[in-house]
Amino acid sequence: MGEPYWIGVDLGGTNIKAGLLDGDARVLTSFSVPAGIEKGRDHVVAQIALAAERAITEAKVSRRAVLGIGIGSPGPMSHRQGLVINPGNLSCMKNTPLRDIIVERTGIRTTLENDANAAAWGEFWAGAGKDVRDMVMFTLGTGVGGGIIVAGNLLRGHFENGAELGHMIVQPGGRRCSCGQHGCVEAYASAGNVAARAAELIREGEASSLKARLDAGEAVRCEHVEAAAKAGDALAGRVWDDACRYLALACITMQHATNPERIVLAGGMINAGDFLLKPLREYVRSLTWTLLDDAPEVMFATLGDDAGFIGAAGCACHAHETGDW
Amino acid sequence: MGEPYWIGVDLGGTNIKAGLLDGDARVLTSFSVPAGIEKGRDHVVAQIALAAERAITEAKVSRRAVLGIGIGSPGPMSHRQGLVINPGNLSCMKNTPLRDIIVERTGIRTTLENDANAAAWGEFWAGAGKDVRDMVMFTLGTGVGGGIIVAGNLLRGHFENGAELGHMIVQPGGRRCSCGQHGCVEAYASAGNVAARAAELIREGEASSLKARLDAGEAVRCEHVEAAAKAGDALAGRVWDDACRYLALACITMQHATNPERIVLAGGMINAGDFLLKPLREYVRSLTWTLLDDAPEVMFATLGDDAGFIGAAGCACHAHETGDW
Repeated sequence: MGEPYWIGVDLGGTNIKAGLLDGDARVLTSFSVPAGIEKGRDHVVAQIALAAERAITEAKVSRRAVLGIGIGSPGPMSHRQGLVINPGNLSCMKNTPLRDIIVERTGIRTTLENDANAAAWGEFWAGAGKDVRDMVMFTLGTGVGGGIIVAGNLLRGHFENGAELGHMIVQPGGRRCSCGQHGCVEAYASAGNVAARAAELIREGEASSLKARLDAGEAVRCEHVEAAAKAGDALAGRVWDDACRYLALACITMQHATNPERIVLAGGMINAGDFLLKPLREYVRSLTWTLLDDAPEVMFATLGDDAGFIGAAGCACHAHETGDW
Repeated sequence: MGEPYWIGVDLGGTNIKAGLLDGDARVLTSFSVPAGIEKGRDHVVAQIALAAERAITEAKVSRRAVLGIGIGSPGPMSHRQGLVINPGNLSCMKNTPLRDIIVERTGIRTTLENDANAAAWGEFWAGAGKDVRDMVMFTLGTGVGGGIIVAGNLLRGHFENGAELGHMIVQPGGRRCSCGQHGCVEAYASAGNVAARAAELIREGEASSLKARLDAGEAVRCEHVEAAAKAGDALAGRVWDDACRYLALACITMQHATNPERIVLAGGMINAGDFLLKPLREYVRSLTWTLLDDAPEVMFATLGDDAGFIGAAGCACHAHETGDW
C-alpha cells in the first residue's frame, strides 16, 4: 500500500461514514459515527473534522502523506464554492462553507462533492465501473439519483445540478413526481414510488394480494411489491414491469445522450437481483435502436453503502491529479 | 487578426464548404466546392486537400502559421481513429482514414470530427454559445441532430455516438422512427417528420387544408405545415404543437442530464422564428421542475450553414490547445 492517502467522508442525515484509502482505492480503515444533527451545525462540523483525524490515527499513516479530504454532501450544494446550500435532511447545515472550514480545522486540502456524484465516482474509481471511462449510474432508493462520468471526469453541469437523472421525463403527462414534473423516471422506478404506486392503484380499487396489508393499516414497501410480483400478483407485476421498462427507456436516453460504456445500478432496489436486472436488460435490448450497436452494459454496483465515502476519497484523489480543488 | 490560423472543412454529400479562420474565430476566407462523389473517393479526398490549399492561398497567410485542419464528416465516423466509417450519403468514402491522408497530403495536423459535433462546436466557439461553457445543441433538419459541450469540451461518448439527441425517447410506444425505436424526439420534432406526420394523419382521414396538396400529388413540407398552422388549420396546429412540446421535453431531459446553461436550436426549422421559439420556451417553463431554478436558456443558432466549417476549424484550434489530436 503506497502513499499518498485520501480521506473520504459521507455526510448523511443520521450518520457520517468515513474512511482512509490509498491511491489504489484500498480502504485502510473505515467507520461510522452519528452526525448528531440535533446538536446543531457546530457539532456536525466538529464530527466531520474529528472523523478525519480518527481515520489518520486508526490507519497509522503519516499525516503528511494524507493529501486530501473528500466530503460527499446531500444537495443542493456547490462544489465550486465548497458550500452546503440547503439539504432537506440536514437543515442545520444550511449555507455552511464546509470545504473551507475543514481545510482550516485540519490543514488538509478538501473538496466538497454532491453525495450522489461522490457515490458514482466511487463505483467508477473502485467498483462496477473501474475498467471504463464513460459511465452512468442510477441509484434506486427513495428517489432515483444519478451520476455521469464523461471521458474520466465527473459531469457537474453549469448549475451544478447535472445527473439529476431521476427527473428525466419518460412518460409525458404521466404520474406526478415530488419535484413538480409529470412522468419522471423517479415517479415509476424508485423503490419509494414502486411502493407508492402499488398502494395508490389498490386504493383506486384495483385487486391485489397487497390489499390485506393496506387494510390492516400496514405500509406497502418496495420489497412487498417485489415479493407479490414474484408470487404472480398481477397488479404488483405490472408496477414492477413498468419500473423496469421506464428505467430501460432512461438507459436508452442516456445511451444517446452521453453514450456510456456501462450503466451501473445502485440503491436498495438492486437487492431484487435478476428479478430487476433481467427484464431491464431485455427492455433495453428490445427498445433501443438497431442503427448502431452501442447499447451500454447494465450492471449492479458493487460497493453498497461504502460507495459514498470511497467515492469522496476518490474525488480528493482526482482533485489532486487535475489540480481542480 | 493574429496568428495562428485554422482551416475548417465541412464535408457534405453534395458540397465541401471550407474556410480559414484566425484564433478569434474570424473567417478570413470561405468558399464551397462540389464534393464530386460520383467521381469516387480519390476525387473527394483530392478536393478536400485542394480546398485546404486554396484557403491558405486566398487568405494570404503564411503556411507555417496554419497550425491545424479540422474536418467535419457525416457519421458514423471515428474521431479517435480519424476514420470515415460508413456515411449514408457519402458511400464512396467508406472506411477512409481521412485524417491521416490529409496530414500526408498537406503536412498540417488534422482532426476529424462528426459533422453534428463540429457544428455544435462552431456555435459554442463563435456563435450562440460563445459566452457559455455548458451547451446543448439540437439541429432540426430532415432528422434531429445533436451536440453536447460539457465544461468547455465536446462530449463524444465511449462509442463515439454521443449526443444523438434526436433518438432520446420522449413518447414510449410512440411513432416509429427510422432508427428502429418508437417515440424518438426525431419522430415528432424534425422538419422531415413534422411534414411526414401531417401527411400521415391526413391519409388516415383527418381533415386539413393541406389535403388539397396531397390530392394534387404534391409533397407536404415542414414549411407548409407551419403556414397551415399559422392560418388556423387544426391538424397542422396539433402537429406543430406536438413538435414544440416533445422538443421541450427533450430540453428538460437534457437540463437534468448534462445541465447546460444554454440550449441552441439550429437547422431549417428555426426559420419559423417565434412561431417555434415562443411555444417551445413556454412548454419548457411549464413542464420543468419547480424544485430548483436551473432551466437552460433556449436560443437560436447564429452561424447558419457556416457552423460546420467554422466548428471544424474550432475543433482543430481546440485539439491544438488540449494536445488531443
